[in-house]
Amino acid sequence: MKLATLKTTHPDGKLVLVSSTSSECLDVTDIAPTMQYALENWGSVESELAEKYQRLAEGKVTETEPFDGEKADAPLPRAWQWLDGSLFLNHGHLMQKAFHLDPIEDADKYPLVYQGAGNHFLSGSDDITVADLKHGIDFEGEFGVIVDDIAMGSTPEQCLSKIRLVVLLNDISYRALGPREMKTGFGFVLAKGATAFAPIALTPDELGDHWRNGRVCLPLQVSRNGNVFGTPHGEEMHFGFHELIAHVAQTRPIAAGTVFGSGTVSNADPSRGQACISELRAKEMIISGAPQTPFMAEDEVVSMNVFDEQGQSLFGAINQRVKVSKANV
Amino acid sequence: MKLATLKTTHPDGKLVLVSSTSSECLDVTDIAPTMQYALENWGSVESELAEKYQRLAEGKVTETEPFDGEKADAPLPRAWQWLDGSLFLNHGHLMQKAFHLDPIEDADKYPLVYQGAGNHFLSGSDDITVADLKHGIDFEGEFGVIVDDIAMGSTPEQCLSKIRLVVLLNDISYRALGPREMKTGFGFVLAKGATAFAPIALTPDELGDHWRNGRVCLPLQVSRNGNVFGTPHGEEMHFGFHELIAHVAQTRPIAAGTVFGSGTVSNADPSRGQACISELRAKEMIISGAPQTPFMAEDEVVSMNVFDEQGQSLFGAINQRVKVSKANV
Repeated sequence: MKLATLKTTHPDGKLVLVSSTSSECLDVTDIAPTMQYALENWGSVESELAEKYQRLAEGKVTETEPFDGEKADAPLPRAWQWLDGSLFLNHGHLMQKAFHLDPIEDADKYPLVYQGAGNHFLSGSDDITVADLKHGIDFEGEFGVIVDDIAMGSTPEQCLSKIRLVVLLNDISYRALGPREMKTGFGFVLAKGATAFAPIALTPDELGDHWRNGRVCLPLQVSRNGNVFGTPHGEEMHFGFHELIAHVAQTRPIAAGTVFGSGTVSNADPSRGQACISELRAKEMIISGAPQTPFMAEDEVVSMNVFDEQGQSLFGAINQRVKVSKANV
Repeated sequence: MKLATLKTTHPDGKLVLVSSTSSECLDVTDIAPTMQYALENWGSVESELAEKYQRLAEGKVTETEPFDGEKADAPLPRAWQWLDGSLFLNHGHLMQKAFHLDPIEDADKYPLVYQGAGNHFLSGSDDITVADLKHGIDFEGEFGVIVDDIAMGSTPEQCLSKIRLVVLLNDISYRALGPREMKTGFGFVLAKGATAFAPIALTPDELGDHWRNGRVCLPLQVSRNGNVFGTPHGEEMHFGFHELIAHVAQTRPIAAGTVFGSGTVSNADPSRGQACISELRAKEMIISGAPQTPFMAEDEVVSMNVFDEQGQSLFGAINQRVKVSKANV
């Protein structure tokens, strides 16, 4: 199934089913008014939604409207928990090499994860509104999953069976503020902006063979102002999402609608490029001693997309423009 | 005003006004069905609530019921953002001395803060359900505030005027898991349990002269199994809450209903005791080279309370018992 949320006056918007071609959508608020409701009641709404999706595919539903991803909200416009991992170890290795940092102990044994703010996610078309360009405005192309209720102490296998949706996201990061927050040990707060999501959430089965071992095994296409910035592949993720979830569930139950992120997608093969500016700058530092590529300036645009073999966009596009907040100038 | 939330079948419960003696409460769902609603509509509901509170004080309201803090939920049962500071520098100094850690750079200039999970707060009478006693079960007695909408870039003074409620909370911590998460730089995830709150939230004016410079200038009484564990005073907080909020608001707008914590209340005067076990253990390590006081065992009880000069409990009591989860044994 493909699901999305259309904007309404309510912060949670309204739930729609998206056709397999992503060209049409169908109001399913009679089954589940919002994405959060669907996730909290997955056991009872899944079969009804699946049946509608089937009828939509067969052209048996007439009440559809055109689906415009640019006007959609984030699939889940806000989440009670947003936990972002750093599951592509190549990213950390490059950062450590460039900045001469000690490696993080056992980072290959236990997934790195921080708790982010989920109170207001951005749509894939919302501006990135920043306080100050000097904060070092960066994007991070990531895969993510949204889960059902998961009991404390669940195994990775149990967690795998509770992954309901797969999403594509941009973890907006302020690089000038990150190092100090990492050094305190308290983690990222100022260093992260509101996270943005591509419009369509997929049930894992929609990915077919590309969903393997709790990983999205497809390349993520990232562009900056229309120029390809990288196409790193999801298969190289060191931990599966189910392992990240089980790690967090060791000391807490996980509520339906909790979102987990992969961390910036990163590959050891340099020809793949990268999904964030800081990684390119790290490569430049390693090669020539200094970074050359600047962080984002006002009006620059970052785009993200994931295509299947037929060239169809699976999650719809992220296209975000940087704007400096005028609120407190 | 004194406000509380009674448990219902809905996770947000229902809002009540609590009488100044904390003995009675009044259903105010006709004005605001939930605490979150009240916070999101403070400008329009405050005067109505204040008027009812006044009439309650004058004995002019007849539809009251007895208020039982033990049956109340957390004043705000869940929050879209929960940001916990570490604003009593004495706590950090003791930790650094005991564990021979380097001091955190500029910790006296910029408040330390991590993002916690606000999806399900505990009431002050809920059990502390832990996965494993070996995690080093600890409490942290803290003051907290709940705010209105705050624009990105707001000054500390602007933030001070947006503090709507003051609360008392227990930041449940798993000490065996904290050091590794601090070392990664990603901050606390596994190392924190669900936060618990005393039943009554106060508007700052209820504290009278004890609310000064964004600080609760009263001693916090902490007991373990009925024995006094500490009475550290809130006045020694190095940053005011308004400074913590303005720090976070540098790069994000803050939504109504966001909760900020002070970090464990801690005083330089050792006769004040302490509000968490790890601080006592640190003192023992500094004096004798090894900690003597164990962390919490099953069925141990931690209690917290704050009294005014007349001996009245301002926030109601926290009384929590440690239980080991049987869910996944």
